[in-house]
Amino acid sequence: MGEASFVAGDWGTSHLRLFLCDARGAVLDSGSGPGAADAGGGFSEIFDSLTARWQPRSGALPAVLCGMVGSTIGWIHAPYLPCPAVPDQIADGCVAPRRDVHIVPGLSCHNRFAAPDFLRGEETQILGALLLVPALRNGRRLLCLPGTHTKWAVLQDGAVQEFLSAPTGELFALLSEHSVLVRKLSQKSAVDADAFREGVSRFNEYPHAQLLHRLFECRSRMLGGELAAENAAAYLSGLLVASDVHGALSLLSISGSGPVYLIGSSELTQLYAMALASHGCGASPVDGAAAALAGLAQVHRRISQPVAAHDA
Amino acid sequence: MGEASFVAGDWGTSHLRLFLCDARGAVLDSGSGPGAADAGGGFSEIFDSLTARWQPRSGALPAVLCGMVGSTIGWIHAPYLPCPAVPDQIADGCVAPRRDVHIVPGLSCHNRFAAPDFLRGEETQILGALLLVPALRNGRRLLCLPGTHTKWAVLQDGAVQEFLSAPTGELFALLSEHSVLVRKLSQKSAVDADAFREGVSRFNEYPHAQLLHRLFECRSRMLGGELAAENAAAYLSGLLVASDVHGALSLLSISGSGPVYLIGSSELTQLYAMALASHGCGASPVDGAAAALAGLAQVHRRISQPVAAHDA
Repeated sequence: MGEASFVAGDWGTSHLRLFLCDARGAVLDSGSGPGAADAGGGFSEIFDSLTARWQPRSGALPAVLCGMVGSTIGWIHAPYLPCPAVPDQIADGCVAPRRDVHIVPGLSCHNRFAAPDFLRGEETQILGALLLVPALRNGRRLLCLPGTHTKWAVLQDGAVQEFLSAPTGELFALLSEHSVLVRKLSQKSAVDADAFREGVSRFNEYPHAQLLHRLFECRSRMLGGELAAENAAAYLSGLLVASDVHGALSLLSISGSGPVYLIGSSELTQLYAMALASHGCGASPVDGAAAALAGLAQVHRRISQPVAAHDA
Repeated sequence: MGEASFVAGDWGTSHLRLFLCDARGAVLDSGSGPGAADAGGGFSEIFDSLTARWQPRSGALPAVLCGMVGSTIGWIHAPYLPCPAVPDQIADGCVAPRRDVHIVPGLSCHNRFAAPDFLRGEETQILGALLLVPALRNGRRLLCLPGTHTKWAVLQDGAVQEFLSAPTGELFALLSEHSVLVRKLSQKSAVDADAFREGVSRFNEYPHAQLLHRLFECRSRMLGGELAAENAAAYLSGLLVASDVHGALSLLSISGSGPVYLIGSSELTQLYAMALASHGCGASPVDGAAAALAGLAQVHRRISQPVAAHDA
């Protein structure tokens, strides 16, 4: 493990995670703080107070941050870079609220529906995945970053060509929390794999149906005695992920583009891998946290190399 | 206006509405009370206290109630009648928690997705619509009852053959209230017709896409400056209703079945009529409250006619 070289940070809407890293991006220490929505404008102060304990030993270190910290509710606005975008453009698009801090920009595109689309934070994970998975750098590759707003991204020779957002995780959370379609579970539990698979497979039987006409099944199959109340959320998750995967594959998949690269937590990538498998489509998981760190380290390297140019 | 003949009631989850009616179902007076979810088991007491002021003049009157009052959280469980079901079967399926009160059963079916489906309350509106709109009694007719859980029902010669539920209204409410996709409006306002139409028309450009991949547009078009923040909810409503209408027409519509009969509030039936028109499909609105009353009156007539049989 090397010497402390920079501070990497993922500063989202609701959480801040800071990492003390060596030059290769290996984590030496970490800390956490309030998200951008709760920072009350005190970004500089929060950052300094969290990094203060690293100062005595490591001195003043440069920082690279990604996420909502670069949005209009963030420390400084790092405007969206239009697609197609290559990794170096993303690094070069960083905006500095002060000399030692760089914030990674998000990406924008016009998606398949002639609608604008945006992402912020995922660009850094994609950057990192390009380093961690050499196969991503050549040809046409399909990425999926499952989450609150799942992002499907198309890479061509390492450039982000376009992407598509689906609020799959948000819809799942809203329906699980507030809807009469699934009973509110008293305790959070892992998604039941069998009920999830059942949701996927039932959805796939009528892939051209609209999701709206399948959601009531979470309740009606329960009322009809076919589905245990505690499995309704997993069935719902199966319907949602199946709809997301089916729709994205129909729009973005072309033969010969290989597996879908799933960047995220193991829990989510496993669910998406199951739904992809139901279409005979391979999945290649990439750890989301590792990808973010690798991306931040890459941005740090790019920024710190041409020192003269930056000081000029 | 005739003499008071019976009490009609729509006792849903969150509201109770009682009507003092003449024999033809014309309303002489009305009252309201707590929904089935808030009745705390005191259905009989609530009913008696609300009808007490009608007693001195009208004497003891029979009552017909529909809605969640007949569910497992209700006064008494009035089991779902399986489809196909004709109006007389629905009236004959009433369950009486006490001698003077009759509660209308809901309907069940197996829908197009081989899933059980259920409705409760809408059966009474369908009954009433059959009386108010003679054309519904012959041939194959498609009904839509838009709401929290929109119901699409297929009638064949006046019998309910099958139906399909879509939680369109619930999804709209959840996303409007809790999602970052649309800004929470400080005041409830009427849906902007132009933004609604824009959502319908944008959806219809890609009818085979999954709804999930269109929802993010409510936010991204706003961020991209194409959609005013105060119109995002109307755009969302357009996407949702378009998805509901497109999906239901593909599944249930056959040529020559005429217009879709829309039973509900004028606000909702107008939105659905717009989405139907975008498919070149006619719409025939039926007032939802009038249909419910006509249905309750019909059940009352059926129950009170064979007095001897009932007393036997």
